[in-house]
This record gives sequence, structure tokens and C-alpha cells, in this order.
Amino acid sequence: MKHLLATRDLRRDDAIMLLDTAEDMADVSDREVKKLPVLRGITVVNLFYEDSTRTRISFEAAEKRLSADVINFAAKGSSVSKGESLKDTAQTLRAIGADAVVIRHPSSGAPQLLAERDWIDTPILNAGDGMHEHPTQALLDAFTLRHRLHGRDGARGTGLDGAHVVIVGDILHSRVARSNVWLLSTLGARVTLVGPPTLLPADTSMWPARTTYDLDEALADDPTAVMLLRIQAERMRDAFFPNTREYATFWGLSEARFHALGSEVAIMHPGPMNRGLEISSAAADSSQSTVLEQVANGVAVRMSALYHLLSGSQEGAA
Amino acid sequence: MKHLLATRDLRRDDAIMLLDTAEDMADVSDREVKKLPVLRGITVVNLFYEDSTRTRISFEAAEKRLSADVINFAAKGSSVSKGESLKDTAQTLRAIGADAVVIRHPSSGAPQLLAERDWIDTPILNAGDGMHEHPTQALLDAFTLRHRLHGRDGARGTGLDGAHVVIVGDILHSRVARSNVWLLSTLGARVTLVGPPTLLPADTSMWPARTTYDLDEALADDPTAVMLLRIQAERMRDAFFPNTREYATFWGLSEARFHALGSEVAIMHPGPMNRGLEISSAAADSSQSTVLEQVANGVAVRMSALYHLLSGSQEGAA
Amino acid sequence: MKHLLATRDLRRDDAIMLLDTAEDMADVSDREVKKLPVLRGITVVNLFYEDSTRTRISFEAAEKRLSADVINFAAKGSSVSKGESLKDTAQTLRAIGADAVVIRHPSSGAPQLLAERDWIDTPILNAGDGMHEHPTQALLDAFTLRHRLHGRDGARGTGLDGAHVVIVGDILHSRVARSNVWLLSTLGARVTLVGPPTLLPADTSMWPARTTYDLDEALADDPTAVMLLRIQAERMRDAFFPNTREYATFWGLSEARFHALGSEVAIMHPGPMNRGLEISSAAADSSQSTVLEQVANGVAVRMSALYHLLSGSQEGAA
Repeated sequence: MKHLLATRDLRRDDAIMLLDTAEDMADVSDREVKKLPVLRGITVVNLFYEDSTRTRISFEAAEKRLSADVINFAAKGSSVSKGESLKDTAQTLRAIGADAVVIRHPSSGAPQLLAERDWIDTPILNAGDGMHEHPTQALLDAFTLRHRLHGRDGARGTGLDGAHVVIVGDILHSRVARSNVWLLSTLGARVTLVGPPTLLPADTSMWPARTTYDLDEALADDPTAVMLLRIQAERMRDAFFPNTREYATFWGLSEARFHALGSEVAIMHPGPMNRGLEISSAAADSSQSTVLEQVANGVAVRMSALYHLLSGSQEGAA
Repeated sequence: MKHLLATRDLRRDDAIMLLDTAEDMADVSDREVKKLPVLRGITVVNLFYEDSTRTRISFEAAEKRLSADVINFAAKGSSVSKGESLKDTAQTLRAIGADAVVIRHPSSGAPQLLAERDWIDTPILNAGDGMHEHPTQALLDAFTLRHRLHGRDGARGTGLDGAHVVIVGDILHSRVARSNVWLLSTLGARVTLVGPPTLLPADTSMWPARTTYDLDEALADDPTAVMLLRIQAERMRDAFFPNTREYATFWGLSEARFHALGSEVAIMHPGPMNRGLEISSAAADSSQSTVLEQVANGVAVRMSALYHLLSGSQEGAA
Repeated sequence: MKHLLATRDLRRDDAIMLLDTAEDMADVSDREVKKLPVLRGITVVNLFYEDSTRTRISFEAAEKRLSADVINFAAKGSSVSKGESLKDTAQTLRAIGADAVVIRHPSSGAPQLLAERDWIDTPILNAGDGMHEHPTQALLDAFTLRHRLHGRDGARGTGLDGAHVVIVGDILHSRVARSNVWLLSTLGARVTLVGPPTLLPADTSMWPARTTYDLDEALADDPTAVMLLRIQAERMRDAFFPNTREYATFWGLSEARFHALGSEVAIMHPGPMNRGLEISSAAADSSQSTVLEQVANGVAVRMSALYHLLSGSQEGAA
């Protein structure tokens, strides 16, 4: 593995290797002193063309826990606004000494472009690109699900075979949904996508998942986990969108729907949550909610990805 | 001590302990290599809902001098603007691995809320909340005063008994004034609050301090120190406020008032100063001014607070 | 050397010493683990009154590679906007524990002011001030040129005697041009300044350089290197400026002009480039282009400057 760009092309054994190393990283995070010296002297640049404090902080925590030097580059008011191209920015970062670039970009495919054009010879980690992919989010979700299925002690080496994951929301525009669909199916889980007709992909044959408008039908089909996507309120004025009341009624995990679920069903959300819209507080604050577990697992999964992508250039120092 | 939220509930012996440890920290800062390894592997998040470069930088310097990993979170353009609640943000930070949270918030009581609701089990340090408190500012002021009263060598173990501190300005809206009033009186100092009638608390019986509109009268009462508060120029258009000329005339430490003071009276200001408004340059740049001493002491006091709040979870590593 | 404010007053032997140490620093950057412990415990503040991600990141990388603690202070939305003067800001930074200040400021002479008034007793490094100077840019350009002239192995101890550098663009408003003119001539190079009549200095007798409007004439005069300055598109609406098409035609390094140059002529640009305006992609992406080499050398040169300015206060620890 040279980059982490998408889950679509991630092989099952590579995915499991990443998750297994994340188990080791989670163990490190439980220790008194959480730092590992494996990336000492290594510079990681977080190149964020979009605001995303949560994802940036999670990567930053992962990088610092591996003892990397971290440089944050918010590409706003920077030379990007002066017209510098992605290529020039990437090559500049490389010349300054970046050993890896974590990139968040509003355009789908930007990280891929960076990696494929040989503009820069460092590992590229996709931290979310347009409506395309958000692979570390899918990895942390899979990591969380593995723990639910097999327990923390029994998770190593396993996939998600036999699981059924219901993903609810604006599937069409969601990079989180896309990355999850590919990774979950690669790991053997069955996926059902639920949302308003205008927010589901038209051609469902393209996705390894079943689609339906009917949340209650999907929830009746013995789910292992229900994953609520964040609704972007600013999109609600859009013609494609139902209004908020309608959305909450038909596609929100209301208190009633939550209580009708089995007590072992995991309630997942990438955060931040809109309580009362896509998720009720009853569900969000229940013991079935994995929301904070997902956040914590995000650091472990990102440590694992950084470790695997950078360990080649790091053999002498590790 | 689990948190540092306010000076109002700080016991005298705890306050003196914090000041005494700050003496040790100031000694460290005088060394060639100023770093202490006591918070190695510890992550401190500076969660700032308000711009405050000075306070943020002071905490950041304190954290780095103790070898902590520092993550700055400017809660603007972040998920806060996407509607995430304080609770979700705090729990997210904890899940990401924050071992302590330094919080600045425009709402009075926000840090208290975080601490009391058990939303997060890390130490919370209040870096200023609305018009409520700014406890580390009061601690650094007390630290500075102790040095003036007893000398640096004789300060350990002492309070401020016998001192008289005159605080001048917009007392009503000032968290600096509030935190100082409580801490100064706990440490045995007498406090006089001076300001325009509309900017003094109505019910003076609530505060362990005397209030007066007459600055010259207060300055004639043998003060140990005069503390000028920063005037927020943007508030000057407010009906409660005198205009700037009137303010400078009646409540500013003019050159004439400064020269009438005894040469041993300390001139204090939390910074940044409005020269010519609440303080004359003659006073600000005199050898009686403690302005820069206060800034330097701020780092020592914050190192002390971080050390005390985090040393429990750190015993194995220290 | 106490500060690095300008190249105008830099002596030849000091310049060569800075470049020679930068050679050592570049060697360090080629190693597996690139960190040097020489500034451990030292705090460097990057005080940026202007956005400049590239320069800030380059300094930050240099500081971290020397193991300094780095505090970034973007003086916007900070207390500067509350009216704090440069003096108070600098003294505050010193009191907080800054051991060196890297400053970028829109006003020509601001770093000089800081250094000369004894407001602060730390080294000041000018990272660009108004239309005045940008000394580390000139040093990295000289470093790059030395490698072209003498090879990396033969560069130590040498100047730029015999070289001819053609600088093209808005000379009048360029701090990069100013710093380069002084340093290049100090190091023995001959300089030709080329640009539109309105963008060249009126009194050419003040500059140790020849000026001309005719780029082709200058390029025919056996240049060692052609340095294209970045055109600020926002200035193009200005009466002093030609329009972009006119500029590209008369003063851009077009593909035709580039191919007419000898294959050993170095093509330099401080970045970020406006492709198609001051430089053609053919030139920018050719093997003669030193653009990325310049970026990489910037880190080495800044490490060298920090090392020399701080090693005095650091003798015990080094």
C-alpha cells in the first residue's frame, strides 16, 4: 500500500491488516504514556482545503502520538487563493520536507489526482474528497463494528461476515456512505441504503447494496447496526430535500424507532449529530450508541494507516 | 483539585499551593533548557470559542514547557458553527484523547457546565468565560503582588495580608475583576473597586470589596497596587459608558495621578493596554509597571495549574 | 550577527558563513531522521501580520527540525485588531518566553523597528516586510545559485563571482528583488533588472544593478540565471501596470524565449507561479527550473539563520 485514497480498491487482507494494527494502536492509547517513537523525525502535513476540525484534530492526535512533526496547512487565505494549483502546492510541501500529506478537498478525486500524476512521491491519505470517499471514516466504522461482533479481544483477523448494516440519509451526496458501502461489502457485510427517493443513487446496480425508501422495513430486517448520516441543514432548502420535519418523521431514528430495535443493535453516527433530526437524543445517548467509540477508534485507525504508509521510508529509524 | 473553574471557591491553602508551585515553574523558565518532561504523552486541547491570542499563547507556552502535546481548536468555522453542542464537542475531544481541556467561552458558566455535568472526565481549566471568571489571570496577578510584597525569595508560603489593591474600570462586565476580587480577599488583601457609576455592581454587599466612583480618593488610601482594567473601546458607544475623554479624565491613570502615587505602588494591567485611555504611557512604561512581569508570571501560573490538575493521572510517568 | 533584518547590511563573510551552515543543514535533511536537538527547550514565535502559508510553513519546518517549540501567532483577529501596538505585542511575546521572533509585516521597516528600539532582546528574523526586504528568500536564492555554479560538493566557501542574474518583473514593489540585488552584488554577481518602465526604480544609481525594459536584450547577455518575480494579479488593475496579455508578451518567459536560452541557464521563481503570465509551463517544468530546489533550500537556509542567531543563548545546551 502506497496511499490511502479510497476503500473501493482496498483488498480484504489489506483492510484486515489495517484494522489489526489499529488494535495495537488502541492498546497504546490505553497506556499511561501514549506516544510511540515510530515517526520521530517524520513531517506530516495536514492539507485542508475544507474546514473540518474533527477530522483534522483526529489526524493531528494520531500523528503526534506517533511522534511525527505536524504542520497544519489550512488552504484558505493561503497561496491557493492566490491561484496556486494543487500540483504546485503539493510539490512545495514535498520540497519543504513533507513525508506524508493528509488531504481534505472539496473536489472529488483530488487526492487520487495527486497520487496518480506522480506530482509528489509521498504517501497521500484522503481525509475526505467531495462526494467521493472518506476511507479512514469507513475504517473506523468497520473497526467499531468488529468490536461489536467479536469483542475487543476476539476482533483480530476477522471481517464483518454475516453483519447487516443499515445506512440512512443523503446517500447520494455522502462520501461516508460511499466509503462504507465498499469497505463493508469487502469485509463480508450486507448493506441496506435508506433515504428519500431524491437522495438515493438512481442506478442501484452500481452499488453492492440494496436500497429502499422505507426505514421501518429496513430496521425490521435484523440489522447489526444502524448508521445515521449527518444531514447538512444548509442543503435542506434544496429542491432535492424534504423539509426537516418530514425528514425526521420518515428517516430519523426517533425514540419510538429506537425502542423498537433490539438492544444489541449498534447505533452509529459519524458526528456531529443533529439531535432531533436524523437521530433522537434517546438513541444518541443510549448505551447502544457507538458515537464516541467511533471517535476514539478514529485515532487508532489513522495511526495504523500512517504507520503502514510510512514504515517503508522509516525502516532505519523504527 | 480536579478543575480550575473559578477563584470564588478556591481555598486559601490551595491558592498558596498553586502560587508556590508557580515559583518552581518560574525557576525552570529561567534555566537554559526550560522544558520539564512531566506531561510527556499527555494531550492538552485549547478549546477557544473566543479569539484571545495572548491567553491562548500563554497556555500553549506553558503546555509545551511541560512537554505536553498541544492541539489548538478554534471553535469558529468548526463544527460548532454546524450546530454541535458543547457537550458533543467536549466528549469528542475526550474520545480523541484529550487529557485536559483549556476552555475560553463567551457564555458565563460554560466551563462549570462542562465540569459539573460529568460530560467529560478530564480536568477543565477556565481560560475566561463571559463576564464570570478568569482564574489564571487572578492567580498571575496574586503571584505578581506576592513578589512585590515579599520579594521573589520570600514569597513562598505567603498570602497577601495587609495589601490594598485598587481595581479601576468596567467592574460590572469584567471577569478579571471578579476573579481578582475573590482571590485577593481570600489571600487577605483589601480591595477597592473604582469606576463610573453605571459600571459598578449595584449591590456592593455581594462583593468582598469597597466601591467608589472617586479614583483620587481611592488612590489616597495607601494602595499597594493599582490595577487598571482594559476598556473595550467597542463598548464606548454604549449608553452605560462615559465617552473616552470623560473616562480618561475621571478614571484613567493619567501622568499627574501616576506621579502623585508613591514610588513603591505597583501599576498592574492585564493587557493589552489602551495608552492614553485607562493608562498613561508614563505609568505604563515606568519601573513601577508590572505589565510584562504579569505576562511572564502567567506562564508560570498556568504551568502550575496544569501540573496540579494532571499530576494525578500522571503519577506513573512523572 | 544578532538579527537577520536585511541583506543590504550583510557582510560577505557573514553571508558565506550562513550559506555554508545551510549546506550542513541540507545534509541533515537528507538523513533518515532529520531532527537536530540544538534548539531543544527554545521557543520560536512566528508572528505573521500577513498571510503567507509558504513562508510560515518553511520557517515552521526549519524550527521543528531543530527541535524548537513553535508558536504560531497570526496577528489577525488577535489583539492587534484591538489596537495593541507592535511594541506591546513584541514585549508580550518576550515575556511569554519567546527566544526568537520571526516576523512578517505589511509595513516596510517593522522588523528593524523592533530590533533597534530595544523593545525586545531576542533575535528578530525578517520574513518579509512591506516593499523592503525578504532576506531569507535572497539567501535561499544565493544558495541555489551556488549549487548551480559550483555543484553541491564544491559550494562551501564560495560566493557568486562571475555570475550574471537577470531579475524580471515588478522590481519597484518587490522585497524579493531588493533583497536579491543587495545580496547578489555582495557575493560578486552582476545583476540586471528588467520590467515595465513604471515598475522599475526611477533612480537607478541607487541600486548596484543595471536596469532595462528590454527582456530579450538582457537574456542575450549570457545570464547564469533568470529570476521571474511573481506578478500580483490584483495589482494589474493599477495604472502603473500593463495588462496581463501585454505583460506576458513583453516580460514573460514564454516558451520561445525559454527555448532560446542556453540549456545551462537556471530558471528561478520564488513561487507560487502564475503559469502563462510571468512564466510558461515549458520553462516552469523544465529541468532548468530550480523552483522546487529553491523551496527545499529555504528550509536549510532558515535552519542556518536560526542556528546562528540562537546558538549564543544556547551554548550550554548545544
